[in-house]
Amino acid sequence: MTLSYAVIGTGAIGGYYGGRLAESGCDVHFLLRSDYEHTQHHGLVVDSVDGDFVLPKVNAYAHPTEMPSVDVVIVALKTTQNHQLMELLPPLKPESAILLLQNGLEVEAAVEKLLTEKLNKDNLATAPTICGGLCFICANKVGPGHIQHSDYGRVLLGAHSSVLKPLMPSPLLKAITVDFNRAKVETDITNDLPMARWQKLVWNVPYNGLSVVLDATTTELMASSDVKALIATLMHEVVAVANAWGEKIMEEAKLADAEDNSSERDGLERYDVDIDGLDGYERALSTDLVEMMLEHTETMASYLTSMKLDFDRQRPLEIESILGVPLQVAETLGVLVPAMTMLYQQLVFLNARNVG
Amino acid sequence: MTLSYAVIGTGAIGGYYGGRLAESGCDVHFLLRSDYEHTQHHGLVVDSVDGDFVLPKVNAYAHPTEMPSVDVVIVALKTTQNHQLMELLPPLKPESAILLLQNGLEVEAAVEKLLTEKLNKDNLATAPTICGGLCFICANKVGPGHIQHSDYGRVLLGAHSSVLKPLMPSPLLKAITVDFNRAKVETDITNDLPMARWQKLVWNVPYNGLSVVLDATTTELMASSDVKALIATLMHEVVAVANAWGEKIMEEAKLADAEDNSSERDGLERYDVDIDGLDGYERALSTDLVEMMLEHTETMASYLTSMKLDFDRQRPLEIESILGVPLQVAETLGVLVPAMTMLYQQLVFLNARNVG
Repeated sequence: MTLSYAVIGTGAIGGYYGGRLAESGCDVHFLLRSDYEHTQHHGLVVDSVDGDFVLPKVNAYAHPTEMPSVDVVIVALKTTQNHQLMELLPPLKPESAILLLQNGLEVEAAVEKLLTEKLNKDNLATAPTICGGLCFICANKVGPGHIQHSDYGRVLLGAHSSVLKPLMPSPLLKAITVDFNRAKVETDITNDLPMARWQKLVWNVPYNGLSVVLDATTTELMASSDVKALIATLMHEVVAVANAWGEKIMEEAKLADAEDNSSERDGLERYDVDIDGLDGYERALSTDLVEMMLEHTETMASYLTSMKLDFDRQRPLEIESILGVPLQVAETLGVLVPAMTMLYQQLVFLNARNVG
Repeated sequence: MTLSYAVIGTGAIGGYYGGRLAESGCDVHFLLRSDYEHTQHHGLVVDSVDGDFVLPKVNAYAHPTEMPSVDVVIVALKTTQNHQLMELLPPLKPESAILLLQNGLEVEAAVEKLLTEKLNKDNLATAPTICGGLCFICANKVGPGHIQHSDYGRVLLGAHSSVLKPLMPSPLLKAITVDFNRAKVETDITNDLPMARWQKLVWNVPYNGLSVVLDATTTELMASSDVKALIATLMHEVVAVANAWGEKIMEEAKLADAEDNSSERDGLERYDVDIDGLDGYERALSTDLVEMMLEHTETMASYLTSMKLDFDRQRPLEIESILGVPLQVAETLGVLVPAMTMLYQQLVFLNARNVG
């Protein structure tokens, strides 16, 4: 028995993963905007390194209100569009989950906040579960209802906790993983979605940012010893913020724990350091990570980052979720990140001129 | 009685200032490369905000050995060509002066070193005086023997000291200033050429660098609050290095002074803190400088920096003299300059790809 899915934002990410799920037999419903007419008549075409496929007929919708309630709402919008998300959600049922296949930091918390407002307004009692997924993929929408998947594809799933604590996999998350894996998508679960997001930022910050500022592929960037040094600097800055964040949140958890032991539990979700299977867990990125990522990227096929693809198509860049939020965290924690700051300033300038 | 001049490198700077001197009646000799034939037959055309002029006949040379010995050899090459300078100098006489109209830091010291080698090789006893000039000008070579001067034009002259001490104006420098001023070029003298070079770098580092990386005019850069903040960061870094350098060299001077007073003078040129007219002189840039420069640039006419002009013509960028040398000084003095470092790395990448 598979889950049912809605895909909000049928671009490269939504089209590819939603298409894979549909092809494997899952019940998938796609919300489309500009490609609605085309997809309604011609379906979805996916050229993929893992095997091409065509879905001649898909469940396509132009309006979210027309969509059915599903088990899992996959949000595959760019984070730059998240302010529209509440108007784009299909009808929810209490047991629905929202899965954000998005880049950046704190995207689940942002959506959680919007959802709370919506639920209050709609007078609903239960908030849907929120999960996040990190997509390690090179995919691109090359035409209406036409996705090109050129490399990679793994998804790392994790549950969102409002207090950002590590969580053991829920049955729901396991069921999603089963569906994805059966759909030929390599999928794993992380117990620590926030740290997984930080780890992905270690790669995304330098490569997404510099590919735009220097108008270059990963291969071109790595061929320059000066740029390689700059990439390492940026990576070390992200690791420093991530680890300062991890340390702070562990301390807060210990304080909350001590409080819990000395007073009555107030029924709120609390960070629990002694969570099953996570004893002695350190919320810190390894210092080897930078070297490993540099080496890995050097051997990778030449790669145009998602931010560069957005830039070249004059779409708004995901500057805030990839750089802006981490910079705010750095400022709050007093971690100096001069290279990230400069990269952010350069990107804001280029983006403003680009999308005019 | 005016001085005689040779102009090595008849581009925008050499063509404009040399042309002005020739027009005013000075004896000026131009060394040309690609424009030699054209200039030999058609002279020099200068379109200038301070008044257009044409020199139908100029003393043009294709080979420096054919040039006469002059009083002042004006070097107006890009610093990227300085390694060729010794082959491009005309015959020198003992009382000749070399005036470097060039950007960057330590350019006089670099030429002084090359000159010493040349003098040793040529078995000459006396080294020529070396001076430097900072040109605050917007000028561009728009065709063979055709210079366009669109804004500003002031020159700040200073003498070079091998121990980088402040120097009162020499009679020679005063005579050059008289010639320049009579030639409609506003010209002043600085007693402290190194600090004047640092001060100019406070402007040149951010605007030259970012105009290339962000492909923008000064007006476009200043219209973005993010880029303006970045420019201020870069300026503060340059000021910090400049003032650390100034402090160090003052301390060295005091030590040398104390040594001089306690032992016999060894005949070498020594930094003298109590130089006439410079008592209590501080070698430090004012903290107001950053704010002043930002305000000034905001009211300036839109300006394409010299580095941007070079980039657009696929000429090598003056990265080393404008950023590389200051970065070396910063490293030696232990001053952290993360934004300058990142800008340098980005420029090296863009330059390498641009000039291929």
